[in-house]
Amino acid sequence: MKPSEGRKRILIEEIQPTVDYGRYPAKRVLGDTITVTAAIFGDGHDHVAARLLYRHHAQRKWNSVPFREINNDRWFATFPAGSPDDAARLGLWRFTIEAWVDHFDTWVHDLVKRLAAQPVPGLAEDQTGSVLRLSERSLPAGVERMPAGDSGQDIPLAFRIGANHIDAAASRAKAADARKLTAAAAALRALADQNLPVYDDPLTPEGILNPSLIALVEKYPDLAFATKHPIEFPLWIDRERARFSSWYELFPRSAGPAGQHGTLRDVAARVPEIAAMGFDVLYLPPIHPIGDAFRKGKNNSVTPQPDDVGSPWAIGNMHTGSPEGGHTSILPALGGFSDFDDLLNATRAHHLDLALDIAFQCSPDHPWVAQHPAWFNHRPDGTIQYAENPPKKYQDIYPLNFESTDWRGLWDALYGVFMFWIKRGVRIFRVDNPHTKAFPFWEWCIAKIQRSAPDTIFLAEAFTRPHVMYALAKRGFTQSYTYFTWRTTKSELQSYFEEICNPPVSEFFRPNIWPNTPDILHAQFQVEDLAQRSAVFRQRIILATTLSANYGIYGPAYELLEGRATKPAPGKTSSEEYLDSEKYQIRNWDRSSPGSIAPLITRLNHIRRDNPALQRNENLHFHAIPNDSLLVYSKSTGDHTNTILTVVNLDPLNTQSSMVELAMDKLNLPWDATYTVEDLLTQAQYTWHGPSNYVSLSPAATAHIFRITS
Amino acid sequence: MKPSEGRKRILIEEIQPTVDYGRYPAKRVLGDTITVTAAIFGDGHDHVAARLLYRHHAQRKWNSVPFREINNDRWFATFPAGSPDDAARLGLWRFTIEAWVDHFDTWVHDLVKRLAAQPVPGLAEDQTGSVLRLSERSLPAGVERMPAGDSGQDIPLAFRIGANHIDAAASRAKAADARKLTAAAAALRALADQNLPVYDDPLTPEGILNPSLIALVEKYPDLAFATKHPIEFPLWIDRERARFSSWYELFPRSAGPAGQHGTLRDVAARVPEIAAMGFDVLYLPPIHPIGDAFRKGKNNSVTPQPDDVGSPWAIGNMHTGSPEGGHTSILPALGGFSDFDDLLNATRAHHLDLALDIAFQCSPDHPWVAQHPAWFNHRPDGTIQYAENPPKKYQDIYPLNFESTDWRGLWDALYGVFMFWIKRGVRIFRVDNPHTKAFPFWEWCIAKIQRSAPDTIFLAEAFTRPHVMYALAKRGFTQSYTYFTWRTTKSELQSYFEEICNPPVSEFFRPNIWPNTPDILHAQFQVEDLAQRSAVFRQRIILATTLSANYGIYGPAYELLEGRATKPAPGKTSSEEYLDSEKYQIRNWDRSSPGSIAPLITRLNHIRRDNPALQRNENLHFHAIPNDSLLVYSKSTGDHTNTILTVVNLDPLNTQSSMVELAMDKLNLPWDATYTVEDLLTQAQYTWHGPSNYVSLSPAATAHIFRITS
Repeated sequence: MKPSEGRKRILIEEIQPTVDYGRYPAKRVLGDTITVTAAIFGDGHDHVAARLLYRHHAQRKWNSVPFREINNDRWFATFPAGSPDDAARLGLWRFTIEAWVDHFDTWVHDLVKRLAAQPVPGLAEDQTGSVLRLSERSLPAGVERMPAGDSGQDIPLAFRIGANHIDAAASRAKAADARKLTAAAAALRALADQNLPVYDDPLTPEGILNPSLIALVEKYPDLAFATKHPIEFPLWIDRERARFSSWYELFPRSAGPAGQHGTLRDVAARVPEIAAMGFDVLYLPPIHPIGDAFRKGKNNSVTPQPDDVGSPWAIGNMHTGSPEGGHTSILPALGGFSDFDDLLNATRAHHLDLALDIAFQCSPDHPWVAQHPAWFNHRPDGTIQYAENPPKKYQDIYPLNFESTDWRGLWDALYGVFMFWIKRGVRIFRVDNPHTKAFPFWEWCIAKIQRSAPDTIFLAEAFTRPHVMYALAKRGFTQSYTYFTWRTTKSELQSYFEEICNPPVSEFFRPNIWPNTPDILHAQFQVEDLAQRSAVFRQRIILATTLSANYGIYGPAYELLEGRATKPAPGKTSSEEYLDSEKYQIRNWDRSSPGSIAPLITRLNHIRRDNPALQRNENLHFHAIPNDSLLVYSKSTGDHTNTILTVVNLDPLNTQSSMVELAMDKLNLPWDATYTVEDLLTQAQYTWHGPSNYVSLSPAATAHIFRITS
Repeated sequence: MKPSEGRKRILIEEIQPTVDYGRYPAKRVLGDTITVTAAIFGDGHDHVAARLLYRHHAQRKWNSVPFREINNDRWFATFPAGSPDDAARLGLWRFTIEAWVDHFDTWVHDLVKRLAAQPVPGLAEDQTGSVLRLSERSLPAGVERMPAGDSGQDIPLAFRIGANHIDAAASRAKAADARKLTAAAAALRALADQNLPVYDDPLTPEGILNPSLIALVEKYPDLAFATKHPIEFPLWIDRERARFSSWYELFPRSAGPAGQHGTLRDVAARVPEIAAMGFDVLYLPPIHPIGDAFRKGKNNSVTPQPDDVGSPWAIGNMHTGSPEGGHTSILPALGGFSDFDDLLNATRAHHLDLALDIAFQCSPDHPWVAQHPAWFNHRPDGTIQYAENPPKKYQDIYPLNFESTDWRGLWDALYGVFMFWIKRGVRIFRVDNPHTKAFPFWEWCIAKIQRSAPDTIFLAEAFTRPHVMYALAKRGFTQSYTYFTWRTTKSELQSYFEEICNPPVSEFFRPNIWPNTPDILHAQFQVEDLAQRSAVFRQRIILATTLSANYGIYGPAYELLEGRATKPAPGKTSSEEYLDSEKYQIRNWDRSSPGSIAPLITRLNHIRRDNPALQRNENLHFHAIPNDSLLVYSKSTGDHTNTILTVVNLDPLNTQSSMVELAMDKLNLPWDATYTVEDLLTQAQYTWHGPSNYVSLSPAATAHIFRITS
């Protein structure tokens, strides 16, 4: 069957930024300039024109901006996605592309060639006339001159064809514009009627076809056979913190004086110090009541002592036998809701976000277990299936059953948990193990939440297979934990960051990289020697803060270089579990320890704030250096006003030296440039020349973070 | 809004082979084994199962085949796309994927681990019992043993859970199967009732859960929450010649005795010779009447002599003043329809296809010009716009106007041209300049033709920008001309063939490569010295025949080493136009010339027929060789029963030598293999060892085409 209109001759393909052909939104933040690219082309030799149509979901009409050609049928257009503070422009945007054959533009370019090919009468006699100027003038790049001897009689006919194009534009124009256009068409026909042997150029600023007249015609394109792409591609606009954030995680119960169960008030008292270190997200593990049933003791013991505080991720009831508790309540030992509100106000006063940990699982004494038995998986003996990942068993946790007959009720309850805390003022959630909950739930839940609170940020804690991690990001998670912890060699780091900082992954997956978490103490850190351990901790935080715009640490364990692990499980060479883990007990941290690297972390966070190049990822480029212990990479702002070049010694035992071979174009420097590199860690300055320069880093120095100035 | 079913937990992504997310079909041929791959995964740790659903468009029901996992959530399934001779299975197929959580399989794997983790009572006393065998048995790869000391009491409960799964399968089963399943479930519950301290393995061939019982359960999966991909991906199945063909082009008017206008009968007489050379497609430039108006003379002269025969691409009327002619008639000097039918029969008798050239353009005296003025673009002075690509002018040709108000009538007429020749028996069309006709027309026309004649092959002659060439291939063209002619250096050849022989391009674009055409005599061939010229012609035909499964030559110009060009145009360094081009005049070729390379071409075509590795492209691999004048590549059949390794000397002046460094895995050989390479051009045999072997080729030898045997 024929299409309803067979004359739509333009094709639009390869549109970016898109995710899975428009099934999911690409992600950007407020204030970003969005660049849309596409292949746009038609049959034959006619010229093409195209425009980008875009709108925030609250706008009813499309905004429009013209596409410009890059090369080889590739086009681009840009638009601003709101201003950085315009919260009304958060959330879902859509864009699409409309393209058409531009017969008028084809005609203009054709006319230029015809004019240039006119015979030049009297050339030998008269070297001064306008005719000569015209025939000698330079043609636009890529335009071939018509063969000499071509009949000048084509030009009046060409003028008449152009006049018809201009009249057609007039018929689509507003009255005032239409009058101008009609007059120009008439003038062009009058010129044609003169049938001159040689014509002067009417495309000059003084001519009939002057630039403003050309622009006026292009203002009223003929869209009768325009192709509009059938997909309205979604684009998700977050607030800036989605792209650039520095997280600090601490256990509130360890925030109190030695020997006491810390409270939310103790946490509030620490906020100024955390803010002064340069963090902008304070993240707390779950603050809810902890189940009594099968409570875990210190070091994950299954035989707890009566005073053991249990794991905050085993969410239970307010106190033994109480039917209250769960995910919308606060562990009494931490305080009450007014304490929580005060903490929230303290973080706000210091421009921090408070991030809560949402772990959708229940201790056996969680109220939902009794109230909603259908949300759990019952076994033939009537018991509820506890969490298991054979051979591991988590008897203190019941997973939720996403194949429940009451899945609708379950979804509503989980959505309700988020909304409860959003109504209290929380806007960042770190979601525990989202990959063990059904994908359709996340897609629905996050979209529904962000319709009313589009400034909400979700961090996915899914340490699992790449497809699963990416699927969660596509379905709405704002940021994601990564494999960074286990990428330690130069080649591992480079290939992993090249994967996650470039399309297609970077369009939907925002890495938030953590050198440590309460669950993961990498073997690299488990070093007895303090100097060596310190070198590893410094190296990893420098990598984290300069490779990724989003990062976080679990403190004070990190700045205090906590490296003691439990004994490895049978058959394993190392454990990633902390000895005396805060997951199961209160820890007292000596933050005044002279070995603390808090000053370095503070410096790094301020370098990140001062240098916008470090606040985004798509600009990451690795440079060549023929030493496998040295990693070199740069980040630049789009306008190259800020460029940071980082060199990291990955060897915590030895000084490493090498010539670095810089890709000068990535630094926006000419091949033979002389430029200054200023180490933002030491304030030392060096003058460098060209791409090849010498670097040498001891384990104590660890890294250069150079700002490049020319 | 919630989905209608929120319990569909499996995701299906990254499906291949697909083109633009299912917008266009991927292309294969009859007899191919189609391998579909996808990422298939769910949340959590439950096992996944999936099946491929596929059908030919004439089949109403889906066929089904299970997916198997590759690794990391990647799965594959295969099915045969008809048998090579089953013409009823030509044309459009569709496939999609259905996937679900396989709770039973999850349970089986869980049970294996539970059984293996049972305590081993009396181990010290009794080393011979089945209990010991069970606890010592190897676990499947990747399965961890349950921690020792786990309660054996879990096992009766596990049996009861399994019995429930089996009963559920029984409820979905045919009566006979249901009885077997119900009995097994009951037996499993009876075993559970025994509450033994240690259980023997019921998964052995003699056990309740023997392999055939397991298979019976898997036969009736629970599809209640299965995910079916929303897209039914199209797949286009051509006949084998679409993938593997050798074309010979000749001008019928040059096929007669010297001094006479050749006829279709003369062409028929040449068919046995062309078939003996090993070609399987005989392609004729347009055979229609040639316009008188603005007829071109010899060497593209605009002042023809009365006896000039004109360009066959200027399609006109039967004779001066006649209202008949056009694309469904035959130039009287070539003969009539009975001659045409005889020629078609002659080609069939020799297992050749006859390919016609369809050039949708009209000489000013083509009947359509008078009958359908709306199909042409009229200028303000009432004249019709002739073809122009400024500065080039083609006054002998009127292009068709695809923005005609009567575009529907135009489309029907063009479709009618193809169908006219299809009804006479033609099944291959070489389409002239398809990129100057509207894309929607081609998509409609080719689809409509192939619905009634799915064995029709279309070759797109579009020498234009990559996006346009690929767009035509996506819209239905079976094969496409390429840039091969202008890819002459090692790096140009390698990168171009890597692009067109790999996905995504190879899924829809089938290259048909031509060392020469009547329009293109590359500068490389324009060499005075016969030995050097012969080396170039030999090199290029060896590249064509071994790099690409589809190729063609314009003969006898090719085998007779025709290298004379017209003078280059002003500003150009060389012309690609033949001197005394057959496009404008009759040529007499001396096929008995001693310099003819017809014997080499014959040999190459027979090597292609004898070696299935050369009959497809997706198996092309370039090997390393540290000499920029030597190109080395291999092709293997999927089962590696046939492997061809080609080494070509790209230098027509000097002998080139080097060690070749073979990627042994691409040859399916071990690193240290000793193997025989037999040169199919010379029958010489060599014994090679491992990846590094010496080659040396003179310009006269040109190439090795090795068959590898071990």
